[in-house]
Amino acid sequence: MTSSTTISLLSGGLDSATATALAIEKGNQVIGLSFNYGQRHKKEIVAAQSIASYLGLKEHIILNVNLSTWGGSSLTDLKQAIHNQGVIKNVIPNTYVPGRNTVFIAIGLSLAEARNADEIALGINAMDYSGYPDCRPDYLEAYQRLADLATKAGREGHGAKLWAPLVNWSKIQIVEEALRLGIPIEKTWSCYQGNDEACGVCDSCRIRDNALRQSGRADLCVQAKS
Amino acid sequence: MTSSTTISLLSGGLDSATATALAIEKGNQVIGLSFNYGQRHKKEIVAAQSIASYLGLKEHIILNVNLSTWGGSSLTDLKQAIHNQGVIKNVIPNTYVPGRNTVFIAIGLSLAEARNADEIALGINAMDYSGYPDCRPDYLEAYQRLADLATKAGREGHGAKLWAPLVNWSKIQIVEEALRLGIPIEKTWSCYQGNDEACGVCDSCRIRDNALRQSGRADLCVQAKS
Repeated sequence: MTSSTTISLLSGGLDSATATALAIEKGNQVIGLSFNYGQRHKKEIVAAQSIASYLGLKEHIILNVNLSTWGGSSLTDLKQAIHNQGVIKNVIPNTYVPGRNTVFIAIGLSLAEARNADEIALGINAMDYSGYPDCRPDYLEAYQRLADLATKAGREGHGAKLWAPLVNWSKIQIVEEALRLGIPIEKTWSCYQGNDEACGVCDSCRIRDNALRQSGRADLCVQAKS
Repeated sequence: MTSSTTISLLSGGLDSATATALAIEKGNQVIGLSFNYGQRHKKEIVAAQSIASYLGLKEHIILNVNLSTWGGSSLTDLKQAIHNQGVIKNVIPNTYVPGRNTVFIAIGLSLAEARNADEIALGINAMDYSGYPDCRPDYLEAYQRLADLATKAGREGHGAKLWAPLVNWSKIQIVEEALRLGIPIEKTWSCYQGNDEACGVCDSCRIRDNALRQSGRADLCVQAKS
């Protein structure tokens, strides 16, 4: 029996590294897919390469799709300062990038069909970032319905399935799973800023560091350590 | 009252030029969006620029998203010969590009949200190309449901609407509408081959030329005439 193939959208962060390791644990062959989308924090691409190498991925593709051509987010428009609004309820922070996950999953679908892959692994998590519209379960369900109609493989009944194992997990659960899977958390990069070291104050750093501290691993509050 | 804004996916072909002209006729401001996706027939991008200029678009963006990185289609993999299978029923031709429209519309959604656009105009047509899974009404309906959940604007109830005015038209209807709208049909490019002149035998040329002949305009069976 041949193993299944997973396309894993690898951002370089903790969540997608964990989803990727879970796909490997299932026995799947994994092709990593990362994006240079004009993000402020390009360093995450280097972290994605580091994680892909550590996990021994069959292949890792980095594609250019420059969403900073039109910006609309503090992550793709350097003129906008990053707002840290994670504590404010019902506000979508300005780190939201218009259409980003929709674009990335669409490109993943293209690759999945070209390579006869069975699933697309996503590190999407709704619990800590309920502000982002494209990180919620209803979004993923609608995307699966579209995917089943969008591709030749989907119409034939063997299209790729979106697999977002962490979607309803807390960040602490993700940290503990990452530790169990042996992921070198210190090699991942989550910070929204594009500096040499993680800022520790943006929403992404804060949520990650809180979970690490609560899991007793404050020593891992470093990022992309070489 | 300010006019509405349309993002128009402009391939350089007849159908998207017609949809774009219809958006302009409605009084909308139109931003053209074209893709360099590693297609064999890059000449269509030059035709798109020519049409954008002729129609006086406010702006025309050409974005790189290299789907030939993985191919999977005779349009993005030069090792595959183009099959002309238009007369064979129930066969999706090898000119189908995995996920292409899904990727293009996703990128259109990103641009639409960043620019507060009201709609995304698509030249998609199901009648002549029922073989392509991503040119059918059920696909567009599923995409609209996704779009309404995918973006901040969609969640707030003012997201962009997908507008595919030609989806159920015959090619002859499209030709006649293009003539009515004054589109310089001879400046568009539909041929799948990447040669200097249109081949006249690929599915795309054949369907276009048949409609032009039936409309009494065999003289327009040229493409990208400068």
